[in-house]
Amino acid sequence: MPDYDFRSPRLYVDGTLEAGGRLGATADQINYLINVMRLGDGDTVLLFNGRDGEWSARLERAGKRDLALVAEHRTRPQTISPDLVYLFAPLKRARLDYMVQKAVEMGASVLQPVMTQHVQAPHINIERMRANAIEAAEQCGILTIPECRPMVRLSDCLADWQDGRRLIFCDEKADSASPIEALRQIKPGPLAVLIGPEGGFSQAERELIAGHPDATPISLGPRILRADTAAVAALAVVQAAVGDWAHMPTPPPRPS
Amino acid sequence: MPDYDFRSPRLYVDGTLEAGGRLGATADQINYLINVMRLGDGDTVLLFNGRDGEWSARLERAGKRDLALVAEHRTRPQTISPDLVYLFAPLKRARLDYMVQKAVEMGASVLQPVMTQHVQAPHINIERMRANAIEAAEQCGILTIPECRPMVRLSDCLADWQDGRRLIFCDEKADSASPIEALRQIKPGPLAVLIGPEGGFSQAERELIAGHPDATPISLGPRILRADTAAVAALAVVQAAVGDWAHMPTPPPRPS
Repeated sequence: MPDYDFRSPRLYVDGTLEAGGRLGATADQINYLINVMRLGDGDTVLLFNGRDGEWSARLERAGKRDLALVAEHRTRPQTISPDLVYLFAPLKRARLDYMVQKAVEMGASVLQPVMTQHVQAPHINIERMRANAIEAAEQCGILTIPECRPMVRLSDCLADWQDGRRLIFCDEKADSASPIEALRQIKPGPLAVLIGPEGGFSQAERELIAGHPDATPISLGPRILRADTAAVAALAVVQAAVGDWAHMPTPPPRPS
Repeated sequence: MPDYDFRSPRLYVDGTLEAGGRLGATADQINYLINVMRLGDGDTVLLFNGRDGEWSARLERAGKRDLALVAEHRTRPQTISPDLVYLFAPLKRARLDYMVQKAVEMGASVLQPVMTQHVQAPHINIERMRANAIEAAEQCGILTIPECRPMVRLSDCLADWQDGRRLIFCDEKADSASPIEALRQIKPGPLAVLIGPEGGFSQAERELIAGHPDATPISLGPRILRADTAAVAALAVVQAAVGDWAHMPTPPPRPS
């Protein structure tokens, strides 16, 4: 892959990626490519759309404020994300942005905000959540964008639970000695990881979750973690114990 | 513990904590307690110094801009951090602050910046690192402050390696299938976790580390992680597999 540089700008696009296909760029993308990255006619960028893998594309300036991206060849085949729903109580803006980015890096395939009793932010901006998800995928070489769902109440979410999806519940009061032992009991299949708000779940919520037939409580150790730290920590132990760190069926090629 | 509230302000202090002991507060602490938290004479705060456990203390206003903290009773015994050195290539300022805070939450006992070939920031401000470590400990109920060491060159660090300290090396090119399996081979004892710079280690560095007799390479999955994400993810799997999430010899009481 002679012209592939992992540090090339990577952009998420909507359109189909195929050899010779021309795609437009958004105003933000044009600004980023031309003014931030200082790219010009003929320079190379990487594109992905969540369906067609990653493509090397050539930049074609069509004017001072316009450009086209011409797909040339595929640099990586499409990968499929693990089926992993990340359920979280929304945080305040900057920390939420950060948490969304981290969940994407850690391989969540669905981002599902849930309203809990001690929630810190009662609303969520899905467009902003999706923009953060795209940015994280662009920066971290990820080929899919997780589905960003609107907020639901925790009780509704649990009542409508998909049969057989294991609900890994990060419970600061769990007394399980080792999260790995608890996770090892889980059979392969769809997963969900639930992180509560910084104020913790209410007692009624804890009972509701713990009583759910698909729930597996895990402990995240003897220290209280902030919600964004807990997100990465929980997803790391889950991916390592029962997710795609453990199996890695199709490791993508890593350019050197 | 009637007057114990986990959300009480928690402050790190230098002085000895004992019943009836009076401690001064720094200008920053006074500003935080009075202007941010709006506390006044007789209000309660929690104090820790890394040696004497956590104490409930009463605030005594001694004037508009002065106050004393009078320790009343111990709310938690001192805990001992796992012997876990966190080695990291410095990042740029805001992300470094964040990474230091996360390493403290995740239970590192020593923060050791290491200079690598592709390092993003050639200098490090130890005082700032320590201030971030204290802030994280204050906010997350941690009773010790990790030792903050000055930067060393990676090669010097490895040449002076403490005999028998296992060096867990997060290698994006590791082909080990499961980090948990790799970690399970480690015998109990002192640990270190090494996270490289965002540009990765150079080939010479990788060979130097991999050839170290105490090195255990682990993989952090099929996605490239940013350095601050890798910090939390690596420390999570290490704590879960061989650290204090696995053993939890003396779980601290969690106030309800």
